[in-house]
Amino acid sequence: MTLERASAWAKYRKVRAWTEYLAEPLSDEDQCVQAMADASPTKWHLGHTSWFFETVVLRQFWPELSVYDAQFLYLFNSYYESLGPRQPRPQRGLITRPSVAQVKAYRAHVDAHIQAFIQRCDLTDWVLAFQAIELGLNHEQQHQELILTDVKYLLHQNPFGAVYRPQAGLVALHPQPLHCASHQATQHAPPRWLPFAGGLHSMGYTGHGFCYDNETPRHSVYLYPFEFASRLITCGEYLAFIEDGGYQNPAHWLSEGWSVVQACQWLAPLYWKQDTHGCWHVFTLHGELPLDLDQPVSHVSYFEAAAFASWANARLPREAELEVAFSEVEGGRSSDLQQAFGACWQWTSSSYDAYPGFKPFEGAVAEYNGKFMVGQLVLKGSSCVTPEGHSRASYRNFFPPSARWQFSGIRLARDL
Amino acid sequence: MTLERASAWAKYRKVRAWTEYLAEPLSDEDQCVQAMADASPTKWHLGHTSWFFETVVLRQFWPELSVYDAQFLYLFNSYYESLGPRQPRPQRGLITRPSVAQVKAYRAHVDAHIQAFIQRCDLTDWVLAFQAIELGLNHEQQHQELILTDVKYLLHQNPFGAVYRPQAGLVALHPQPLHCASHQATQHAPPRWLPFAGGLHSMGYTGHGFCYDNETPRHSVYLYPFEFASRLITCGEYLAFIEDGGYQNPAHWLSEGWSVVQACQWLAPLYWKQDTHGCWHVFTLHGELPLDLDQPVSHVSYFEAAAFASWANARLPREAELEVAFSEVEGGRSSDLQQAFGACWQWTSSSYDAYPGFKPFEGAVAEYNGKFMVGQLVLKGSSCVTPEGHSRASYRNFFPPSARWQFSGIRLARDL
Amino acid sequence: MTLERASAWAKYRKVRAWTEYLAEPLSDEDQCVQAMADASPTKWHLGHTSWFFETVVLRQFWPELSVYDAQFLYLFNSYYESLGPRQPRPQRGLITRPSVAQVKAYRAHVDAHIQAFIQRCDLTDWVLAFQAIELGLNHEQQHQELILTDVKYLLHQNPFGAVYRPQAGLVALHPQPLHCASHQATQHAPPRWLPFAGGLHSMGYTGHGFCYDNETPRHSVYLYPFEFASRLITCGEYLAFIEDGGYQNPAHWLSEGWSVVQACQWLAPLYWKQDTHGCWHVFTLHGELPLDLDQPVSHVSYFEAAAFASWANARLPREAELEVAFSEVEGGRSSDLQQAFGACWQWTSSSYDAYPGFKPFEGAVAEYNGKFMVGQLVLKGSSCVTPEGHSRASYRNFFPPSARWQFSGIRLARDL
Amino acid sequence: MTLERASAWAKYRKVRAWTEYLAEPLSDEDQCVQAMADASPTKWHLGHTSWFFETVVLRQFWPELSVYDAQFLYLFNSYYESLGPRQPRPQRGLITRPSVAQVKAYRAHVDAHIQAFIQRCDLTDWVLAFQAIELGLNHEQQHQELILTDVKYLLHQNPFGAVYRPQAGLVALHPQPLHCASHQATQHAPPRWLPFAGGLHSMGYTGHGFCYDNETPRHSVYLYPFEFASRLITCGEYLAFIEDGGYQNPAHWLSEGWSVVQACQWLAPLYWKQDTHGCWHVFTLHGELPLDLDQPVSHVSYFEAAAFASWANARLPREAELEVAFSEVEGGRSSDLQQAFGACWQWTSSSYDAYPGFKPFEGAVAEYNGKFMVGQLVLKGSSCVTPEGHSRASYRNFFPPSARWQFSGIRLARDL
Repeated sequence: MTLERASAWAKYRKVRAWTEYLAEPLSDEDQCVQAMADASPTKWHLGHTSWFFETVVLRQFWPELSVYDAQFLYLFNSYYESLGPRQPRPQRGLITRPSVAQVKAYRAHVDAHIQAFIQRCDLTDWVLAFQAIELGLNHEQQHQELILTDVKYLLHQNPFGAVYRPQAGLVALHPQPLHCASHQATQHAPPRWLPFAGGLHSMGYTGHGFCYDNETPRHSVYLYPFEFASRLITCGEYLAFIEDGGYQNPAHWLSEGWSVVQACQWLAPLYWKQDTHGCWHVFTLHGELPLDLDQPVSHVSYFEAAAFASWANARLPREAELEVAFSEVEGGRSSDLQQAFGACWQWTSSSYDAYPGFKPFEGAVAEYNGKFMVGQLVLKGSSCVTPEGHSRASYRNFFPPSARWQFSGIRLARDL
Repeated sequence: MTLERASAWAKYRKVRAWTEYLAEPLSDEDQCVQAMADASPTKWHLGHTSWFFETVVLRQFWPELSVYDAQFLYLFNSYYESLGPRQPRPQRGLITRPSVAQVKAYRAHVDAHIQAFIQRCDLTDWVLAFQAIELGLNHEQQHQELILTDVKYLLHQNPFGAVYRPQAGLVALHPQPLHCASHQATQHAPPRWLPFAGGLHSMGYTGHGFCYDNETPRHSVYLYPFEFASRLITCGEYLAFIEDGGYQNPAHWLSEGWSVVQACQWLAPLYWKQDTHGCWHVFTLHGELPLDLDQPVSHVSYFEAAAFASWANARLPREAELEVAFSEVEGGRSSDLQQAFGACWQWTSSSYDAYPGFKPFEGAVAEYNGKFMVGQLVLKGSSCVTPEGHSRASYRNFFPPSARWQFSGIRLARDL
Repeated sequence: MTLERASAWAKYRKVRAWTEYLAEPLSDEDQCVQAMADASPTKWHLGHTSWFFETVVLRQFWPELSVYDAQFLYLFNSYYESLGPRQPRPQRGLITRPSVAQVKAYRAHVDAHIQAFIQRCDLTDWVLAFQAIELGLNHEQQHQELILTDVKYLLHQNPFGAVYRPQAGLVALHPQPLHCASHQATQHAPPRWLPFAGGLHSMGYTGHGFCYDNETPRHSVYLYPFEFASRLITCGEYLAFIEDGGYQNPAHWLSEGWSVVQACQWLAPLYWKQDTHGCWHVFTLHGELPLDLDQPVSHVSYFEAAAFASWANARLPREAELEVAFSEVEGGRSSDLQQAFGACWQWTSSSYDAYPGFKPFEGAVAEYNGKFMVGQLVLKGSSCVTPEGHSRASYRNFFPPSARWQFSGIRLARDL
Repeated sequence: MTLERASAWAKYRKVRAWTEYLAEPLSDEDQCVQAMADASPTKWHLGHTSWFFETVVLRQFWPELSVYDAQFLYLFNSYYESLGPRQPRPQRGLITRPSVAQVKAYRAHVDAHIQAFIQRCDLTDWVLAFQAIELGLNHEQQHQELILTDVKYLLHQNPFGAVYRPQAGLVALHPQPLHCASHQATQHAPPRWLPFAGGLHSMGYTGHGFCYDNETPRHSVYLYPFEFASRLITCGEYLAFIEDGGYQNPAHWLSEGWSVVQACQWLAPLYWKQDTHGCWHVFTLHGELPLDLDQPVSHVSYFEAAAFASWANARLPREAELEVAFSEVEGGRSSDLQQAFGACWQWTSSSYDAYPGFKPFEGAVAEYNGKFMVGQLVLKGSSCVTPEGHSRASYRNFFPPSARWQFSGIRLARDL
């Protein structure tokens, strides 16, 4: 095996192993149940990510290989219309069979054949196959984050709470706790405002590594001078908004957001709970903890982020602004902007639209990103549960404005 | 231990063991998922039936004994308002913890303490305690039937079918297959019509064994002469209704039934499926089988039963008529009326109303039956999945008119 | 014209004129809008009752006569599947055209042709035609009551209230006000309990006048001794139930009723409103009035009636019991039972099932009653808005247990 | 009165008269009913536009004047949270009182007092008051278009169709028919592709007349070279998409659009209907007409517009591109781009986001535009029912991507 192939295989093994590490603390029951249509069972994530490699790598480049199980093509297709019918998303949790063990066997089969394929693939195929494997690994990393956000949502349905992993047991393998809490220096001081210059800027991926189709092509945008808060909004600052009647005052809210607040009776971010003594607690992957006022607020919807910004006499960032600023962080040119990556995804006021000249991936994966470009907002940065090395300044995460089960937080911006 | 107590304990063990036998073929995943609001997970049935003994026997008669787990009082209370808040019924499937293993440990705890209690209970308590245990066992038998109907519904959601138990493997322990199919002599010949006399009859439980509050008091009813078909309607006869356009012709349907037919696009009983060659198949607990035309039709709603009866120029039985007829079967006074018990529950046209002078059980179990006396119809007899010895002529099963996931069939009646 | 025909025509004119009198205070807008699926616009009632005469009399017995307007056959068919497709019930309020004026012209056309038909109909047809006209008039009277209940519901949607007719202006034509209030002697004294004997009784229509198919055949029923409250429950008595926490205590409620109470946040009968000073007001066809504690409570659902009865240590009457008692009132054999007719319909605990030997009307009107015999409860008596002479002891009104927009009240019963 | 004031009054009279002209062919019933939550009754539009003048002009600048009717402040407030509670939008059609006549009296009152106010207003107030009147008139023009789109939707609910105005009767007062059909030269020839240069452009309102807050501030945007089709897509071209299986092929659709197509069973634009011979008809304000293949297709959602563009190997315009191109038309610098205004609103792929530096209007009307800036897409141009002089190149219309009841069509764009 060439060094390049050996390195690809090593990376494959590492990413795949991390997925299984994430599933490890979960019983078969935990891995099977679906708590809401948007959140998939862990077992489904395990199967789907393997199906992705079978579909995009093995079946493309090794057509003689038999399909592992024709039923899995139906069960683990997420949303690819061109690949045929599939289990409806809200019914992924009804699949008690295949079992978790059978899905793990499927993973092992795929892993073994990817290894064999990396060895046997001829040179002409390798360039494309390597790209497909890269895509599969980045895809798997996205599902690693979803496993944690979806499990958190599921365990929260348990009326008596449930712990994914105790806080202590985590240190060795994952130095960063899975709740935003406590992994960053405390934030007593008010944020500073950091200025950025206007004018013609470039955005979109530049580099030689992997990126998604939606990050391209790199293109020019005209920006006006702006400033960013040096850090994310803390739970304490968000609590001040709550205590100032933020959830009772329509003046700060988008019309649709205000409807949601009333229909769903939102009074605080998802996972916050006030006890009868008025103390606030927050549900985390380590179970319920007292609210730490110095940690970044997380699990807020776009509607809440925008209302908070209005209340704070500021605004949310535009995507291009955040990309320009995060590029400086990435390039080591700015040390003042904290929490760009690794704390919370940061809502932008920019709709998830196609870049000028956008071309989707070719083949089945043309459906990967482009067909979701309506009704969603871009989030930039990454969160405490984003796998190491997965994000970058040009990365475009996106969710509908009412989504709260992701680790989504708030950075404020202002015009200069 | 007296003989009476020894016999009570033996019966307890036997009934409880049967519940566990029923759960045996199911994985933890199968036992955890809830496929619709009306159908509960097997794990919940396992927990709830134990909770019932803890609540109705142990906590009543052995108050010094600590509660096993206060959370279980919340999780496994079904609908007893007087016993406090409870897990909402449609969310029983979100409870991945406690695990199946933990619920089994709870069962073992309850069993051990029931055994100890039977030994230690003083004489004055025993009369009432014995009745409470009897109620608990009859209650558990009801849930045994529900485990099978609910699991059948769940496994049917699997797009590729799923087998609860292979047909062969069942014989030793349960001589009667779990699908209506094949356990009765074939039914080529048309049914005979058996006449019954009118006049003043009695209905309601008479005897010295256990019965539910809703079967009492025994009382007089005036009936007009009628006749019954000697056996249940077969799949073949029902197919003739389908092929005659029964599901397309509103003339035979109750108004609300016709709305349901159109809204839910019913074309046949639940679990029937027609393949592209026009052949009919039926999903059973043994997996999908070819439709056996000679077996009794099952899994029809009241709406379908009533439409079929109209199409057949007959009517459905009244509850009192069936009770009179089944009492003759029970008393060995009639050998002509077949399939009174053990095939399918038989829809009656009688609403589930209180008998004159009805008094609910006392205490928390006052909620057992009385509060459901509206909007439901009585079914008489028993089904192929009703536990041996559980039913009787005066037994009153009841479901809403659109329910189809029970083993419910059709016996025709006519005025004389 | 014979005297019989002249008399039929006179009765026809009188009933039809009353319908128009009821519509008189309403603007075209009031007559067009539909406030909920169960309540139809007045214009629709005006058209439908004329369509009924055109369909059941003119088209049956005068086939050469052209259809007035083929579109009206679609628009004004209520639920007769055998007469073809029809405007969906929840969309009756979208029909702004034909206008009220056009529907009135349709009424005039039907009236003129019914008059001509009565004169020209040959002797052999007359017997059947007379019965069809009788049915049409009784049908129209049912819609007269519905016009008022439906308009009341509509005007109540107006956030500022709205008056159907001022209380004063009504006296000449309708000596009885349209709200239950004030038309009966005040009810300070507690009701007396009047005993009735058990044994074999007869129920079902007996006589030579008109009755519906559902009132036949007359048949025997066995009753146990019972007693009735001499009058209906008053608003004051119902208020005591409210003030005793009746709407907060599940112990008195049927399971389904309790679900409705919580889902719909019921705190009092429909049309009751408590102001900020704690005073209760009630919306009537004369506008909002202070609650009169001595009047019979009205606009309660079956669920509320049953809960009140449980709270009062009594029960609701069975249909047969009320029919036996009302027959005595009708026959002048009892002067102690007050408010049998003309105050509020009285909920019974009897499901609306077919009588033994029930045969629907023949022809299209077979759908009149029989197809609704599931999921509903019988109400006996009549209300303050039931047309004079429309009801009788054997009359069977029926509504689902959650219906509140009818003038439905409570009479208590007890076993003896 | 100064000339300026006289001119303001003349404009006011003209705009207000046009609203009443639009309501003229409608009966009181037509004006009262609400066919869906998004479409308001004409009567409500008549009241709301008067309420707007009372609120924004009279109550602001003439505080001594009494409120006309306090109930109207509740009934005719559309969505202004800062002005207090209001009739819920989906229940606007339940308001049968006040009547159409009473709402017209309200209009007359407002008109008389606006006239008096224009005369008596002192000089210092006049500048602001003039702006408020201008806003009121532009607001009223928006509702003029909505009256027609909402009435069209209502009349289409009538199962037998209904005519708003016959085609012939319209010519004198409104030279342009209210259906897109026939008011533009026929479009046999394929469209030409017109190129536009990239680079730094300006967008946003520039001029001295009225504009909305959302059109400001004028700002720079960077565009890449593009080309536009010289005219809108015709019904014939859209029919080719339908006949090529466009509504059956998910490949062209956004994911959410494909869900809507299936859930709502869309097969063609709103108002299109295919008869049993395969001929297409279209419902218009003049009633149902044969489909004219040469007219611009209208009443398509964003989802359909985007799917068509994908099928045609093109894309939808960005807002800035259309604004640049329409500015040339407006400035008389381009005669090749047809149907910029007066045919159909043109969907853009640009989300309705705030411009850099956007500041809402001050006071209550701050809620006019800003709070809707999420989940909607911009449409540019104007339609055949947009009032003369109401639109301009910088105008930003906006609707959710599934909206079809507006006169919305398709212009194609391509990258150069």
